[in-house]
Amino acid sequence: MTRIYNFSAGPAILPEEVLKEASAEMCDYKGTGMSVMEMSHRSMTFEKIILDAEMTLREIMNIPDNYRVLFLQGGGSQQFAMIPMNLMKNKVAAYIESGQWSRKAIEEAKIYGQINVIASSKDKNFTYVPDLKNLKISHESDYVYICHNETVHGTKYNELPEIGDKILVADMSSDLLSEPVDVTKYGLIFAGVQKNIGPAGVVLVIIREDLLTDDVLPGTPTMLRYKIHADNKSLYNTPPAYGIYICGKVFKFVQKLGGLKEMKRRNEEKAGILYNFLDSSSIFKGKVVKKDRSLMNIPFVTGSDELDAKFIKAAKLAGFENLRGHRTVGGMRASIYNAMPIAGVRALVEFMKNFEEENKK
Amino acid sequence: MTRIYNFSAGPAILPEEVLKEASAEMCDYKGTGMSVMEMSHRSMTFEKIILDAEMTLREIMNIPDNYRVLFLQGGGSQQFAMIPMNLMKNKVAAYIESGQWSRKAIEEAKIYGQINVIASSKDKNFTYVPDLKNLKISHESDYVYICHNETVHGTKYNELPEIGDKILVADMSSDLLSEPVDVTKYGLIFAGVQKNIGPAGVVLVIIREDLLTDDVLPGTPTMLRYKIHADNKSLYNTPPAYGIYICGKVFKFVQKLGGLKEMKRRNEEKAGILYNFLDSSSIFKGKVVKKDRSLMNIPFVTGSDELDAKFIKAAKLAGFENLRGHRTVGGMRASIYNAMPIAGVRALVEFMKNFEEENKK
Repeated sequence: MTRIYNFSAGPAILPEEVLKEASAEMCDYKGTGMSVMEMSHRSMTFEKIILDAEMTLREIMNIPDNYRVLFLQGGGSQQFAMIPMNLMKNKVAAYIESGQWSRKAIEEAKIYGQINVIASSKDKNFTYVPDLKNLKISHESDYVYICHNETVHGTKYNELPEIGDKILVADMSSDLLSEPVDVTKYGLIFAGVQKNIGPAGVVLVIIREDLLTDDVLPGTPTMLRYKIHADNKSLYNTPPAYGIYICGKVFKFVQKLGGLKEMKRRNEEKAGILYNFLDSSSIFKGKVVKKDRSLMNIPFVTGSDELDAKFIKAAKLAGFENLRGHRTVGGMRASIYNAMPIAGVRALVEFMKNFEEENKK
Repeated sequence: MTRIYNFSAGPAILPEEVLKEASAEMCDYKGTGMSVMEMSHRSMTFEKIILDAEMTLREIMNIPDNYRVLFLQGGGSQQFAMIPMNLMKNKVAAYIESGQWSRKAIEEAKIYGQINVIASSKDKNFTYVPDLKNLKISHESDYVYICHNETVHGTKYNELPEIGDKILVADMSSDLLSEPVDVTKYGLIFAGVQKNIGPAGVVLVIIREDLLTDDVLPGTPTMLRYKIHADNKSLYNTPPAYGIYICGKVFKFVQKLGGLKEMKRRNEEKAGILYNFLDSSSIFKGKVVKKDRSLMNIPFVTGSDELDAKFIKAAKLAGFENLRGHRTVGGMRASIYNAMPIAGVRALVEFMKNFEEENKK
């Protein structure tokens, strides 16, 4: 078996040991004579799988007891509707626009109420996180929404907006588990798992209990009500069981490595190697202002579309996959999630150095 | 590896050769150096996987060109809302109530309009399919809804309701791929795949093109619009990629065995063995009237709760898993989907005969 270095932004690289375990257990999970794919979601075996996954996540994230953990379907895109449908009481919400994913969330939320964009970094193509001080948040605002790490643009919040007593809602699809999070700062955190956690088809929601309510917008489908899923411990209907099982293995993997502090240390080390090189390179340049750089998604360019294309092609031939930037912004992007070994980043930088040498003016 | 006979109603047994292939490909799919779980859904490799899956399904089901095939999330429960949100123009629909799953669909649809229950078998605990002749369908009805095979009760439609020029919508979660279907009779067919097709987390929708419309109910989330998914070939957002990959393997498995005619022959043979025994047994009895019996889900009882419990326990010890009936109806249920080998049914009947011998009055 030859594994390549996969820099995909998502679905993305998973820990090899998780995949090996899954492979070994595929036809017979721990002597049950069944695959996890074949198990009743009401069986004791599966109930243990989902409970273990939740408990491990609670431990590594230090999630307080007054927060519920939900394993849902529909990805981040469905959360863009679920959030206003469940949280909008006054039909007003404040959104910070820091890139394409917050933009999408804004467009969807507009179906349900008045959306005030209270800060934006659109003026400079989302290459920074907007100023988070002195935000004008109307008192009717039901919540304040941020995208904590913008996968396409490679920005990350290193501090949180000043929002007083408002509820903070965060999309952490591309950076959950990459570093410690103070969950108490948030009303709701969600993450499509296909970036740093597991296979596409599961979305993780961490929601404060007081936000679980039957008072949702009229016309909200039962499946889009957080309270239904919380009341049924994510088993209101058949959950994406196999995906949850893989997520549980990834949580254990993170725990075994030393938890989120250790992940942060590793991620800073890995990202540091690439950023240091970008800052010193004569042909490659990072796109994001230093203070707002993501640890997970690192976009860069040469300044020439032709040279970008040449680089992406050469890198692919050398076993560095999925370095093309998002189709809407071009250039390159290296996504270096938890599962990317430091050797992968070192090898990439080595390759970039050689490419630079060969392509200097 | 010891595989047991798994009679779960869903998630349910999958073909062993599919699981073996998936296990072998887990860490490196066909030399890509990645798991299917780790692949960008925009990659050529994954686009081929989803296209191949669709093409194979089209072949085995003989799906006409004016129908679209969608791979979505949220299970049947989300379809219960998506259907009225997308198809209700007059806010009126006709539903046939033949068991718990049609009941759930009715309750959800009531959020969106006037639901006329035009036939029901509730009077006899859903042990038959209601009379399908001379139905009173109001002319404003946007569609007529049926649950083609009721998993809990073990009934199946062997003919379709007389509905004139109305649109027929069918939940085939528990019997899609079990026999040929004349797709042209339907406007929309859906199936949560976790019974006869694949792992939980994918719902298959087959929809006639003229029903794809932007004219949906106000407040419909973008993710709940069929047209969005059709326009984007099920890649509007990240799809449940790994589940789709497994479904594709199951479609190939069915095709290799000889397609849906052959599946029907096998399923009739398998179900026949169990029904014949039930009809001749002195302690076990089937619960459904003969003409409406399901080929997939076969509920039965002894007439004594105590003896039922004794049987379920003994069967489990002998390696026959998940024979307990649905928690709301009790008794036993053997779900014998495509992937259940005939040897499993024969072994079960043999076991039941012995149990009968030992427990005769």
